[in-house]
Amino acid sequence: MTTDFLWEQIQKKQSFLCVGLDVDLEKVPPHLLATEDPIFEFNKAIIEATQAYCVAYKPNTAFYEAYGLDGWRSLERTMAYLNENYPEQFTIADAKRGDIGNTATRYAKAFLEGMQFDSITVAPYMGRDSVEPFLAFEDKHTILLGLTSNPGAFDFQTKTLEARPLFKEVIACSQGYKGSENLMYVVGATKAEYLAEIRELAPKSFLLVPGVGAQGGSLSEVCKYGMTDQVGLLVNSSRGIIYASSGTDFAVAAGRKAQELQQQMAAELKK
Amino acid sequence: MTTDFLWEQIQKKQSFLCVGLDVDLEKVPPHLLATEDPIFEFNKAIIEATQAYCVAYKPNTAFYEAYGLDGWRSLERTMAYLNENYPEQFTIADAKRGDIGNTATRYAKAFLEGMQFDSITVAPYMGRDSVEPFLAFEDKHTILLGLTSNPGAFDFQTKTLEARPLFKEVIACSQGYKGSENLMYVVGATKAEYLAEIRELAPKSFLLVPGVGAQGGSLSEVCKYGMTDQVGLLVNSSRGIIYASSGTDFAVAAGRKAQELQQQMAAELKK
Repeated sequence: MTTDFLWEQIQKKQSFLCVGLDVDLEKVPPHLLATEDPIFEFNKAIIEATQAYCVAYKPNTAFYEAYGLDGWRSLERTMAYLNENYPEQFTIADAKRGDIGNTATRYAKAFLEGMQFDSITVAPYMGRDSVEPFLAFEDKHTILLGLTSNPGAFDFQTKTLEARPLFKEVIACSQGYKGSENLMYVVGATKAEYLAEIRELAPKSFLLVPGVGAQGGSLSEVCKYGMTDQVGLLVNSSRGIIYASSGTDFAVAAGRKAQELQQQMAAELKK
Repeated sequence: MTTDFLWEQIQKKQSFLCVGLDVDLEKVPPHLLATEDPIFEFNKAIIEATQAYCVAYKPNTAFYEAYGLDGWRSLERTMAYLNENYPEQFTIADAKRGDIGNTATRYAKAFLEGMQFDSITVAPYMGRDSVEPFLAFEDKHTILLGLTSNPGAFDFQTKTLEARPLFKEVIACSQGYKGSENLMYVVGATKAEYLAEIRELAPKSFLLVPGVGAQGGSLSEVCKYGMTDQVGLLVNSSRGIIYASSGTDFAVAAGRKAQELQQQMAAELKK
């Protein structure tokens, strides 16, 4: 998917919501546990209920790997379902991979070709040759961890590296990577004050923003400092949507929650 | 597995060799391709041929994920085989994962509990709360990316972060992490000159050293600067061993190559 197409979808849906599909069997409504593939059934219902209000879905691979082969199968099925029924949705493998050269290419193939994700999250620590193999895939996107929203972000990311903090070095340096037109960044919403500074370094790149809502970030702050003329934002919500209810009405509740966020986004887009 | 047990194995086998099980179907001898699970059959033969000469095995998960469900199954089988037949081998999931809190715990469970690896490689970028969940598992080990052996390592890792390069900051800072007695580090052998400096910061931790041989590092340099009184080194070789021959004699050739390295190690241990 091109970012132009993503931009069209954002305009059309008046939403830049990304729904995180982080499925925990302990939180799935009990009536689904009797089905053959509860994770997939859960996702399917969530997708049906939320797709009108979002432009992206982001399964975090940890949640699937934790269930071994069964989990991996559920992830493949979820992606096949999305690609078949909602190819207009931008899909993100939240895998935070990072390895060198050909090994990175294997991860890229697994997610971008095999499962046909539109994008993958990648950790920057290993530098250029761990990122460029992902960037080589046409119309696919690499979402580099920039400034994450967890407390540990202050361990390294915000520390000054030569002239500037590490996360700025990561963003500035990676803008020079081959294929950087396919680069996006993870930027935690809990640090909205940094967004303006990040925009100076990456004026056009899409930012995947976790942590609005439950994790405390403010949507309007994010928009104020991070929005570009083509939005340039994907705001993710996982638990806030998919676990809005733990009953048989979970999908309806998820849809309602997604719609709520979409409406807040529509208001921001009108500003 | 405890590091004391690992140390016993090293003494007993006079080897601190780690064999990287990075299986590429394009490189597997053709006669194995007709079997039901060529990756597993290949690994089994490599393990049988090399186990006398090494103390650790390290599958890189990218090589398995690239084959989707089948690849994941091959990885599970390989681990089950190792744990059943060679529980004295230290096993490393070279997964380079890194995510926060409960998500990290899921990765940890997938690899350390589900597949019963002894350890996993982890990227440090997200800081403390992305590392400590792995460290919480008793007698399991977290191998943090310290200084990697690829060119991209110079993008960030060697740059100065406040008072010292990022990789030193990562190593020094993580030594204070809860459970740091279970921490090991990936340190590329191509930068043996840094090993002495790393030893000042992490005097006891095991270092997983990739890149001896094919990637150009020198075993004796690594030993000179990195060895502790309990060795504190695991030296990995992947392609140099497992693809020593592409014929039906691949396992014999792998065994020979592993034995060769083991003999060099035995010589270093006698110094």
